[in-house]
Amino acid sequence: MLYFERVVVIGVGLIGGSLAMVLKEKEIAKHITGVGRGVKNLEVAMNRGIIDDFTLDAKSAVDGADLIILATPVCNIARILEDISKYLKRGAIVTDVGSVKKPILDDAESIIPKDVHFVAGHPIAGTEDSGSDAAFSELFDGRICILTPTRRTDKDALEKIRMLWRQAGSDVIFMDADKHDMILAAISHLPHVVVYALVNTVSRIKDYEEDILDYSAGGFTDFTRIASSSPEMWRDIFLLNKKAILNIIGRFQDGLEQLKGLVESNDAVGLFQELNKAKTVRDSLRTARKKKNELKR
Amino acid sequence: MLYFERVVVIGVGLIGGSLAMVLKEKEIAKHITGVGRGVKNLEVAMNRGIIDDFTLDAKSAVDGADLIILATPVCNIARILEDISKYLKRGAIVTDVGSVKKPILDDAESIIPKDVHFVAGHPIAGTEDSGSDAAFSELFDGRICILTPTRRTDKDALEKIRMLWRQAGSDVIFMDADKHDMILAAISHLPHVVVYALVNTVSRIKDYEEDILDYSAGGFTDFTRIASSSPEMWRDIFLLNKKAILNIIGRFQDGLEQLKGLVESNDAVGLFQELNKAKTVRDSLRTARKKKNELKR
Repeated sequence: MLYFERVVVIGVGLIGGSLAMVLKEKEIAKHITGVGRGVKNLEVAMNRGIIDDFTLDAKSAVDGADLIILATPVCNIARILEDISKYLKRGAIVTDVGSVKKPILDDAESIIPKDVHFVAGHPIAGTEDSGSDAAFSELFDGRICILTPTRRTDKDALEKIRMLWRQAGSDVIFMDADKHDMILAAISHLPHVVVYALVNTVSRIKDYEEDILDYSAGGFTDFTRIASSSPEMWRDIFLLNKKAILNIIGRFQDGLEQLKGLVESNDAVGLFQELNKAKTVRDSLRTARKKKNELKR
Repeated sequence: MLYFERVVVIGVGLIGGSLAMVLKEKEIAKHITGVGRGVKNLEVAMNRGIIDDFTLDAKSAVDGADLIILATPVCNIARILEDISKYLKRGAIVTDVGSVKKPILDDAESIIPKDVHFVAGHPIAGTEDSGSDAAFSELFDGRICILTPTRRTDKDALEKIRMLWRQAGSDVIFMDADKHDMILAAISHLPHVVVYALVNTVSRIKDYEEDILDYSAGGFTDFTRIASSSPEMWRDIFLLNKKAILNIIGRFQDGLEQLKGLVESNDAVGLFQELNKAKTVRDSLRTARKKKNELKR
């Protein structure tokens, strides 16, 4: 049975808080300590029963802990690991939930002592909201969680983290970290880059007296929803996954240039083919998702 | 009082059908004839009571009609006007609902006889669905309808079409046609171009054995919703509004290149400013929309 005496969640936000709730509900953890940068969010987590106690001092929290979950912004992970590495118990498991895997793995494997086990993970789940206030234990249910083990990853620790995400209701996939970073750059980071660029491009059009966004119907508002996500979080992801993101932006720029060329040359046939291809791909996504939901019932 | 003895709706789809329903419900039209390219969709409209009768022959339909509403794909409008121009009654009003205004206006004003009145319009409303099956009379309620009169537009005809859209529940705005086409290129056509390019770029990544779209969570599916729109309709809009769209794509390319440059040069401060700016703009849209909905109640 999966069981941890003492768990520490560093960063009790939407993801960290929701995972802590799973640990509580499934009785996987006896005691959960929350660590954060401010008291307010941690008090909310306490009041909601998500954690048993909290501290702002990660070092003292991890001392003697069996499982440490890193759920902070991705750019803070290396610094936190530097801070806590000396205090980690022999045989403890450290895992993370970051959206970028290779740079975090490289940092973790060079910082964490050899007798502590690091397992890199990324639950593909989330909402627009943040903070422990927004946490709910069903967040990971029916979603994918990607784990990116290396040759150095301890097999038992990996199996425990796999079981943890299974308990959260997720399908667990093992994947190479570089591949993870490329795929996420394409399906998640690129859409964010594109929407940020689009919103700023349109808001900078000053050809007319009035704000042209006053004319935007629901479509524009819905489409640009992801631009409302946390700028800190996305800045960090863009910078940490720089290599893959620049690669993918380049491919998108080529794709856009091609589509623009079809409009420029009045190529009605080629243009229809491109738009129809996109529709076919998009419709099949919707169908696949629907099917999956039906199978789950 | 706004009243038309005989109305013809050419193209009884989502927009044309919904407008016909408004004309019926508000008792603005005594008799509505539907015109289309196929019988099936027109029979649905008949069965739903949206139209009183139908024909595939636009010429015979417009003969003696008081109001002709063009609600076909935008690229077909010029050809239809050529077809019907000789049969239009003196003093009849012809109006359209196309997403592009300047090219349609130029065609209409050169084709339509001087004693027939053309009023160019564009209701900013729609859903992902199409066909008379999807029509509903509340579609335009609370939305904006842009009319683009020229020096040649008849004042009485313009006022009648304005009243018609007011009856549909829309806020009516008068605007220069070129300005309309530029603004719509920015807030509506550009997002479509970008999403089509994005879906195709991502679906063309063949670096891995599996289809990387299998890993896409709800985010990608939601974000790319507009790629499921009609490829025929969007091909036509892109080609007809070519000049404005190429201009706007160019500005977007500059904006994207700028954002890419910030990632490339690890400019954390500049990157945060850009993302935060986009968030501020997007959040204000959401707030403005919410406020409007509250005022309406």
